[in-house]
Amino acid sequence: MAAPPADRAARRPVASLLLGLSLDRAADAPPLYQQIRDRVEAAVLGGSLGQGMRLPPERSLATALGVNRSTVMQAYQELAASGLVEGRPGRGTVVMGPYRGPGADSPGDPSPSPDLSWLLSLPPLGQGSLGPDPSLLRDLAAISARPEIISLAAGAPGQDLIPSSAIQAALEDGLRLRGPCALSYGPVEGHTWLRHALAERLRGRGLPVEEDEILVLSGATQGIALAAQSLIERGDTVVVEAPTYIGVLQTFAAAGARLLPIPVDENGMRVDLLAPLLGRVRPRLIVVQPNLHNPTNTTMSPDRRERLLGLARRHGIPILEDEAYAELWFHGGGPPPLKSLDRDGLVLYLGTASKTLAPGLRIGWLAASAPVVARLTLAKQFADLQSNSMAQMALCRMLMDGAYDRHLAEVRIAYRARSLALSGAVSALPGTRIFPGSPGGFYLWCGLPLGMSSRMVTLAAARAGVAVVAGEAFYPPEGPSPADGRARLRLSWASHQPARLVEGVARLAPILQEATVPAGEVRISSLPVV
Amino acid sequence: MAAPPADRAARRPVASLLLGLSLDRAADAPPLYQQIRDRVEAAVLGGSLGQGMRLPPERSLATALGVNRSTVMQAYQELAASGLVEGRPGRGTVVMGPYRGPGADSPGDPSPSPDLSWLLSLPPLGQGSLGPDPSLLRDLAAISARPEIISLAAGAPGQDLIPSSAIQAALEDGLRLRGPCALSYGPVEGHTWLRHALAERLRGRGLPVEEDEILVLSGATQGIALAAQSLIERGDTVVVEAPTYIGVLQTFAAAGARLLPIPVDENGMRVDLLAPLLGRVRPRLIVVQPNLHNPTNTTMSPDRRERLLGLARRHGIPILEDEAYAELWFHGGGPPPLKSLDRDGLVLYLGTASKTLAPGLRIGWLAASAPVVARLTLAKQFADLQSNSMAQMALCRMLMDGAYDRHLAEVRIAYRARSLALSGAVSALPGTRIFPGSPGGFYLWCGLPLGMSSRMVTLAAARAGVAVVAGEAFYPPEGPSPADGRARLRLSWASHQPARLVEGVARLAPILQEATVPAGEVRISSLPVV
Repeated sequence: MAAPPADRAARRPVASLLLGLSLDRAADAPPLYQQIRDRVEAAVLGGSLGQGMRLPPERSLATALGVNRSTVMQAYQELAASGLVEGRPGRGTVVMGPYRGPGADSPGDPSPSPDLSWLLSLPPLGQGSLGPDPSLLRDLAAISARPEIISLAAGAPGQDLIPSSAIQAALEDGLRLRGPCALSYGPVEGHTWLRHALAERLRGRGLPVEEDEILVLSGATQGIALAAQSLIERGDTVVVEAPTYIGVLQTFAAAGARLLPIPVDENGMRVDLLAPLLGRVRPRLIVVQPNLHNPTNTTMSPDRRERLLGLARRHGIPILEDEAYAELWFHGGGPPPLKSLDRDGLVLYLGTASKTLAPGLRIGWLAASAPVVARLTLAKQFADLQSNSMAQMALCRMLMDGAYDRHLAEVRIAYRARSLALSGAVSALPGTRIFPGSPGGFYLWCGLPLGMSSRMVTLAAARAGVAVVAGEAFYPPEGPSPADGRARLRLSWASHQPARLVEGVARLAPILQEATVPAGEVRISSLPVV
Repeated sequence: MAAPPADRAARRPVASLLLGLSLDRAADAPPLYQQIRDRVEAAVLGGSLGQGMRLPPERSLATALGVNRSTVMQAYQELAASGLVEGRPGRGTVVMGPYRGPGADSPGDPSPSPDLSWLLSLPPLGQGSLGPDPSLLRDLAAISARPEIISLAAGAPGQDLIPSSAIQAALEDGLRLRGPCALSYGPVEGHTWLRHALAERLRGRGLPVEEDEILVLSGATQGIALAAQSLIERGDTVVVEAPTYIGVLQTFAAAGARLLPIPVDENGMRVDLLAPLLGRVRPRLIVVQPNLHNPTNTTMSPDRRERLLGLARRHGIPILEDEAYAELWFHGGGPPPLKSLDRDGLVLYLGTASKTLAPGLRIGWLAASAPVVARLTLAKQFADLQSNSMAQMALCRMLMDGAYDRHLAEVRIAYRARSLALSGAVSALPGTRIFPGSPGGFYLWCGLPLGMSSRMVTLAAARAGVAVVAGEAFYPPEGPSPADGRARLRLSWASHQPARLVEGVARLAPILQEATVPAGEVRISSLPVV
């Protein structure tokens, strides 16, 4: 801790970056030098590497990554050629990006590095099977947050549609009603009043649940994590839709699951393709989004729902049903959850306030048979003891006094208008195809012009000031399906008003009109994590 | 779902209870019938089994637990003898407890149970090495929440010391300043403004950290969970203090760690006993609370801190330092964290607002070298994406505008008065010994009269209207140390004002004056999880 703080601050992100870098050594992966180059480029674009920061010497980086020095040299040369870094006499290779963080461009001497041998001896989280580098995803997600960027990537309500005054008022009401004790430790399962209100609401959606069948979560993501920790063991097979929510892929991969991807078409998961597989493989869990699926925005047909439940019953396989978007049908309504047909306690149902109210509340809920709730409650106790009480109070008040439903009515109108604007603009683009989705939710799933790579488009779009998500991010890295994703993008209408969405598509247009670029030339995978 | 809902509600908690019941079959464990009896008794006292609910038929329970039918019969007979259950012709065995939950005493016929074979085929969470049954702990913790109970058990600020108005005002300020976008998705690591404020505060405590060395957590418990998930592998050895925080024992056991307990005396962990072991075992992590340790309230001496860091450096072992109570020295001050002496990036530092402001905020923080933060951030992304933004905003405002420090100044005075009242009352009890702790924190660690069992005292105290925690809950189930805990209690002064603390000790007095009861006769382990 002897070196000037400024220099320490400047070197630290570089160390983090390198430790986070997992090279894909598969035969069909891009060359290693390209992977290193693209990782640094994404970090500079995303702002986590700032101007003046120094890249590690070629030799050290080569040793750390287990590659030839020439591989690192080639990556640095290409970065220099694109103006993102610069070789400086006596200072090594320095970042020239647009971002200027604390301590950037400091001339201090290198301080002794902390001894991280203990950290380096640990295996990568998720045993290297995480697919698209998750910290790369975070870096690219950061692009969306820059104000000059039009985000067609974020799976989050637009800032103008987050009801912060209503949330604040509901919290005030809640605190007046419950007193300060509501801010002390509460039950791991969630406060009784909120479980009661959620059970009542879910009964309204066709689920005959009691409050002891509800587990309050710190966001639906936590429900996926708890299922991965407590319902499967390392090496178990988990059936997922292809494509599916990135968090499902990452969390189950990190838990050591083998992912078995089943394609999705305009009627939801191809249950007919799953059925014959169940004789050979014995999955421990099936994860589906039957209602307003992310990223395709499709809804599973009634006959497939019945057939899926029949398979689950016959083979004794539980189903995790994620209904993150189900309350966002533009005209209200939409089909009842898969769980409403479940007579066997096989379905675990997940909901969240992240898409309807605000992601920052970190409140979701699970409905399942009481013994399942008991098991997940124990896992939750180890994870975070309970979910935050402020959001529990605010959500409960908004459910009880109608503010939640009033807000839903408003945002459905807004999202419908946004959906029409985005679809209209995209359908005018040459060579793109829009996947037929349901009238609701956040997303347009969109095919690219022939021969165009979604990774290339994603990076080019970021340079042009518009954020999109490359389709392949929604597929497990193994299996035949990712090839589909390479020709697709997920576009979201949630974050901006119609005019800005149209402007975003206009920025995208020249990229899609460019000459065809061979797939795989640029390795930038995707943006957000939601 | 054909049966009347009332009956379904009445049977469900029984099913959950049975699935949560893990019998201890060790040679020195209490007889199996006692374990079943005590589990049901705790559930009735804790309110999770209500009057009129039916216990399963003896034969079914015996099959489910893999015991003889006579074992279950004996448990039910003893429960009937104590008036907690009653055999009724044609209805089986019915709970007669004080609590009356929804659907209790309903006469409906049993409905077909959900098919839970898939759930029953899963191994217990934590591979059965969790020690005291964690759902039993929750049941007993629920005792503290009953208004007629005086809680000397809860490790939570008294309700009168939770600054709910100040928290609410800080949130309002925060929302005014940051706008609704602060309620959207934020960085996994926590909002930049909060990381900045926390780094500044920690620098004031002697830690030269920058904001990229801070990870915002959903409570310090999450920091323990993330370390258990991402810094050790199943089967690795983790050094813990004996006694230590229950959550440390449970979370690392659930992650498959072997716990190596090192005794604590009035100068903290016996580092001299750890040193010779490091030749033979190779721990992957050392977990300590050097400052106002839970449950002993002791503080580690300066020479032991230096020696511990030296050992960690020599053997390349990271240290997880939990400072949950460190800001609660009655006169302020207290020693700087262990991490302030760390030149090697070996110490991961944990803090929390749960003890200083309110547990329901679910906000904690970790300070560590940036590569460690990067690794834990990835684990956090899979766990809950980010911590809730309302608490991030409220805490940030209170740190920045002085409200946090003003509140600390107030509660320190209150806790000092409570500490004196509790210590005074306890020291007048016959046969008890108070462990010498530091002037701060929440706890009195107290030896029982010779031959008295802490489990017995815990259950008798609950019957007498006072909640305490049995000492053995703070020790890993294996190893020689738990024997110490059998003769100790943890008493907390945090939850009540002085007069009520004195009344609580008065309720405890007759129990401690009773004739000596052989240790181990009653198997009730402990109460809270904090």
